[in-house]
Amino acid sequence: MQSIEKYSVFIEEEIKKTHYPLTPKNLYDPLRYFMTLGGKRMRPILTLMGAEAFGSSKKEALPAALAVELFHNFSLIHDDIMDEAPIRRGKETVHTKWNQNIAILSGDVLLVYAYQLLAQQKAEVLPDLLNLFNTTAIEVCEGQQYDMDFETKKSVSITEYIEMIRLKTSVLLGCALEMGAIIAGASLSDRKLIYEFGQQIGIAFQIQDDILDLYADPSKFGKQVGGDIISNKTTLLLLKAFELADPYQKEKLNAILQESDFDQKIALAKHLFDVLNVRNVCKEIMNYHYEQAKTALEKIQIPASQKEPLLQLAAYLMEREI
Amino acid sequence: MQSIEKYSVFIEEEIKKTHYPLTPKNLYDPLRYFMTLGGKRMRPILTLMGAEAFGSSKKEALPAALAVELFHNFSLIHDDIMDEAPIRRGKETVHTKWNQNIAILSGDVLLVYAYQLLAQQKAEVLPDLLNLFNTTAIEVCEGQQYDMDFETKKSVSITEYIEMIRLKTSVLLGCALEMGAIIAGASLSDRKLIYEFGQQIGIAFQIQDDILDLYADPSKFGKQVGGDIISNKTTLLLLKAFELADPYQKEKLNAILQESDFDQKIALAKHLFDVLNVRNVCKEIMNYHYEQAKTALEKIQIPASQKEPLLQLAAYLMEREI
Repeated sequence: MQSIEKYSVFIEEEIKKTHYPLTPKNLYDPLRYFMTLGGKRMRPILTLMGAEAFGSSKKEALPAALAVELFHNFSLIHDDIMDEAPIRRGKETVHTKWNQNIAILSGDVLLVYAYQLLAQQKAEVLPDLLNLFNTTAIEVCEGQQYDMDFETKKSVSITEYIEMIRLKTSVLLGCALEMGAIIAGASLSDRKLIYEFGQQIGIAFQIQDDILDLYADPSKFGKQVGGDIISNKTTLLLLKAFELADPYQKEKLNAILQESDFDQKIALAKHLFDVLNVRNVCKEIMNYHYEQAKTALEKIQIPASQKEPLLQLAAYLMEREI
Repeated sequence: MQSIEKYSVFIEEEIKKTHYPLTPKNLYDPLRYFMTLGGKRMRPILTLMGAEAFGSSKKEALPAALAVELFHNFSLIHDDIMDEAPIRRGKETVHTKWNQNIAILSGDVLLVYAYQLLAQQKAEVLPDLLNLFNTTAIEVCEGQQYDMDFETKKSVSITEYIEMIRLKTSVLLGCALEMGAIIAGASLSDRKLIYEFGQQIGIAFQIQDDILDLYADPSKFGKQVGGDIISNKTTLLLLKAFELADPYQKEKLNAILQESDFDQKIALAKHLFDVLNVRNVCKEIMNYHYEQAKTALEKIQIPASQKEPLLQLAAYLMEREI
């Protein structure tokens, strides 16, 4: 995936070039730390690709690309507080390394810096960029709230779950791409199609994440396989299992959720999921969204060659072994 | 102050008209709650006055006025978490009434809504509005960080303290006014002067707050008189006292800070401050900034009649009994 690497290196260098003020140290040190923790930089790459697909350049779309990456990192810093997550990308989270107040405030200022970058784009596209970015940012907050609500909610439907992942993670991929398209002056219908492409890829990717959490090769997976099962997290797998289970199997599933021996818990869940064919059913849903994404891309009124990087990126995102 | 009341009623009605989505309830109920807790609505009034002073209208500047009020409330919700404040405007704070995660997230989304309002202003002034608003928002975060740093910092100079209050509270008043001026198409030099007017009023007002905390009439003051002394808060009074004290008085002051009987502590501090003439010295500093504000206002190239509401507002803000 040479072309993706090229984008990734470009973005990484630009992020390294970003200078935050030296003081107040407790506000800006966390940003310097967190912004260079790495990550796939998928969102800014999407903005650059979106811009190039419609004839603009990486350089022209760079501020918006960085804005979307800063926004993503702001949301991670705050989500990590809410989830009490000690580790992110193998390193301490901001609220663990510093403290919670510092994590709240440095997250806040990072969000403002995202807007400051966005404001560097030329004035004629600024209203459209802002409207899209604001709508998306609101949706991401809504998605995070639904995700938190699901922790205590008695019954979550699959529709509600897909809507939650759409809001929490997928709309930002659509937004990243459409911002590139806006900067390049794409038509409204093409903008909506590339947004849809990103959004559907996002949903498919998130479902893949749910599947991988239980079925990944432990030697290749960066974290504990079965972590979602251990913590009784609402995932598509679990919701599908409940949907497909007969009353006896439902009872069994509820018992598994209470199991305190984690290895046993994972083994029992896996066995029941196999009986119910959950993995394949979820893969089908994932593929459905992947196909929806490709259909949207096909409809865009640009030569196939200009869509190629986007198709490659989608394939790269979806190629993880499940 | 009839004219200020008119503005205030106008803003209050517009805030009441703002509709947030019904769901997710845990995201938007806190906003509905917090945005109608009241407050002086000083910042949006400044934006409206700034716009009118240069020939624009309340209606034209309304989105920006609301944006600045939303931003202010976002910062209060997050500050209240950081300060562990249980009460704001006589009511429970968001993190107390709901919980901390909800307070973080509803604060975040409120900030985004502020930008959404700002984006409603006409495209030709949007880049200037955004740049000012972003710079100010960053400074407010920096001010809050300095304020938190001061809690554990061994020695804070008066210059550092004034800079902290300038960032944390005063720049937003300048920004509110200048946004109105930008919307009305004021010249760059008039924009800078009206910003300076707001900023200096802000500093004077904050110093007045410090003085009132100890010297207010308890029957008129909404909270515990001497609260800053009880909690050993860094204030201009305390910093001035240390600056003016001789070595013996410094020792005495340090002893007072350790006093566990709060009534005694306040009485002892007040006595020592009287000996050192701290109250009057601080009033002089306050008046210096008030004068600076009025000087900036005088230089603005508009008829005196158009400055009148601003002068009245400044007098109203500074008239509290100290």
